[in-house]
Amino acid sequence: MRNIRLEIEYDGSGYAGWQVQNRASKSPVRRSSKTIQGTIEKTLQKILKEKVKVIASGRTDAGVSALAQMANFHTTSSLPVEKIKNAMNALLPKDIVVSRSQDAPLDFHAIRDARSKVYRYRILNRPHRPAFFRHGVYFCSYPLDVELMRRQARALVGRHDFRAFCASGSCAASTIRFVKKISVRKYPYIYPGGGKRDGSLIVIDMEADGFLYNMVRNIVGTLLEMGRGRLKNSGMKSLLSAKDRKLSGPCAPAQGLCLLKVNYR
Amino acid sequence: MRNIRLEIEYDGSGYAGWQVQNRASKSPVRRSSKTIQGTIEKTLQKILKEKVKVIASGRTDAGVSALAQMANFHTTSSLPVEKIKNAMNALLPKDIVVSRSQDAPLDFHAIRDARSKVYRYRILNRPHRPAFFRHGVYFCSYPLDVELMRRQARALVGRHDFRAFCASGSCAASTIRFVKKISVRKYPYIYPGGGKRDGSLIVIDMEADGFLYNMVRNIVGTLLEMGRGRLKNSGMKSLLSAKDRKLSGPCAPAQGLCLLKVNYR
Repeated sequence: MRNIRLEIEYDGSGYAGWQVQNRASKSPVRRSSKTIQGTIEKTLQKILKEKVKVIASGRTDAGVSALAQMANFHTTSSLPVEKIKNAMNALLPKDIVVSRSQDAPLDFHAIRDARSKVYRYRILNRPHRPAFFRHGVYFCSYPLDVELMRRQARALVGRHDFRAFCASGSCAASTIRFVKKISVRKYPYIYPGGGKRDGSLIVIDMEADGFLYNMVRNIVGTLLEMGRGRLKNSGMKSLLSAKDRKLSGPCAPAQGLCLLKVNYR
Repeated sequence: MRNIRLEIEYDGSGYAGWQVQNRASKSPVRRSSKTIQGTIEKTLQKILKEKVKVIASGRTDAGVSALAQMANFHTTSSLPVEKIKNAMNALLPKDIVVSRSQDAPLDFHAIRDARSKVYRYRILNRPHRPAFFRHGVYFCSYPLDVELMRRQARALVGRHDFRAFCASGSCAASTIRFVKKISVRKYPYIYPGGGKRDGSLIVIDMEADGFLYNMVRNIVGTLLEMGRGRLKNSGMKSLLSAKDRKLSGPCAPAQGLCLLKVNYR
């Protein structure tokens, strides 16, 4: 028996998220029932001639992308890792690619061994919508006070109870998480170059030892409200201590979110 | 009568290029006959209730994108430019957007008055194809000697006869052009950040007073051949002086090309 570790990049816009499940009953909106996990497992079955179960570091939601999702699976196949990767990339659809494959210790577990994760949220903030770089970005036409968003975001760093930013109905045993870093930065739309004064792309990076369900998107949704001058009476500190999801901002759309990196011991 | 000047951004991947024309007879491959010009003219007709002809600074080819294509059209409408822009952006498909609209002098002409144009070609150079940022980039898996490409590109700067890089059958009266700048640079795939050693995105920028048909793509195709160790006996200087299209490299694919900027007097 072998344990193979994969690094996977995907554009999540055409998928119902990472995990294989029946979402039809959950949402009144008819959307794709294709999942990243299902697509990868089907491809591996063709290559390895056996059924495998692929475990990812975390289940990304419908429409969420990943630049380096980490996953592992057990197999009895003796195919070299490089060949597994190349065969997968030949068979997988164009919005999923395996960037690395390695033999891992038998007890390596993509969820349990993850020490921290980094998520990125990309906002295009200008009057007109994007046409060329419109993928993986949330378009926001109203002016945002990025300095205020940066200041408010800083209050989230550290060990806190993030119940205020946890989707209702989530079944996490504890809502306490340790946020290591959070940054709110401006970049030009055109990369590299573009006008010196063009800072229309707002990039929010967040690293934590773990994230509650919808935590990043609820935090970003709250920062967006603050950035446009709403939620004036409640800073991030008071929202954290109130622990009430109803007081924080709405959940930001999935298309701006991307799992950037998973750190292991 | 008014003359309106537009700055237009588009993802050209779903279009048969800028110009309205019947391409069916030209290519054996069945592709979209939708054009950027046709789509914009149809939208303007709805808004202005009159037929207009939109002239762009240059006709981008099928599959080629633009970050700031410049165009102009004459109209008798008295609708303010801001309203024309907003109405266009509400009606245009998601892969075309107007980023600016201005009243221009009656004699402004988007082709004739253009002083120079900047084109950008983006190459993703790594072993595995892209999944997340796969739009507007040409994927190239074999290793490239970027330093050599940069050195060879430098020989193109200046006033030269570019017949060696002009598509056969092109009807330009003169094949002499003045290349003001050309740069070959490496950037990380993930923007911003990414590994310090990740320089997988190669960006080639080229500014000239004008470009011959397929000139940028023929130059890039030649640089790609040189970068992978081919065309060893012919540097750019000797290709320029030979003036023979058959000696230079193949035409690089359209999807990596983007019109970045048009400069006017």
